[in-house]
Amino acid sequence: MSKKEPPRGLEERLKDTRARLENDVDLWVATAGAGGVHLVPLSYLWDGTAIVISTPRDSVTGRNLLAGGQVRLGLGQTRDVVMVDGDAQPVDVADLGPAADDFAARTGFDPRELTDPYQYFRIRPRRIQAWREANELAGRGLMRDGTWTG
Amino acid sequence: MSKKEPPRGLEERLKDTRARLENDVDLWVATAGAGGVHLVPLSYLWDGTAIVISTPRDSVTGRNLLAGGQVRLGLGQTRDVVMVDGDAQPVDVADLGPAADDFAARTGFDPRELTDPYQYFRIRPRRIQAWREANELAGRGLMRDGTWTG
Repeated sequence: MSKKEPPRGLEERLKDTRARLENDVDLWVATAGAGGVHLVPLSYLWDGTAIVISTPRDSVTGRNLLAGGQVRLGLGQTRDVVMVDGDAQPVDVADLGPAADDFAARTGFDPRELTDPYQYFRIRPRRIQAWREANELAGRGLMRDGTWTG
Repeated sequence: MSKKEPPRGLEERLKDTRARLENDVDLWVATAGAGGVHLVPLSYLWDGTAIVISTPRDSVTGRNLLAGGQVRLGLGQTRDVVMVDGDAQPVDVADLGPAADDFAARTGFDPRELTDPYQYFRIRPRRIQAWREANELAGRGLMRDGTWTG
């Protein structure tokens, strides 16, 4: 199934990855808690340095993130991925500022208008990796300890 | 971003879900272990009752599944998903039978030919859910305790 394309270099991966963070709308959110591992698709906003998501406080993802915070995110298709490891910090809507409007515009849903209690989380990436197929596994690291490699 | 299409009924979701399990090639694999939560895309084979994956024994996913086994899988795009909860059982290649050939043909890679020690896992779904957008969250349960609802 390989496309047999040559692996991208660092510069191209960084450009593709920043573009994906800015332009995609949805991602996969993996969390863990007392009930084990969980995974759901959610919409997000990239504010330039962090990913903002919102989910019901009493959802599995909400409870896992409120209890701990460690999260791994997957963006893109399975053969063109951006993987993000980070810690999710709960954020009150009052502290979100204009990002609350940006979030609603980007995702098409506004948790402020819903009756269920939603929780925003801000996820600052600690590690970012990007690869397409097996020949791109080498060199997949683009951010380490919160710092871009290029 | 909603397509505003009416939610699918049970029959249509079952048909779509079985077709996806049979025809897709890749999925997202979420696991948890001592290092926290993990998520990677992998290729798979659906043998009619279980999902077969293969990953290096010393990869994070391999180690998590060998230590525990609880796994949550995501198939499809973020707005047309099939979510599978199950337990992964390690399987020796000798016990896989013809599925080892089927796996290589389906995924385009054959762990038997690789020098790294790979481990096959057989994941019998315990729960399956399928939804597209928020209006399909109700009625998303298609399998409970290993039994299809239809």
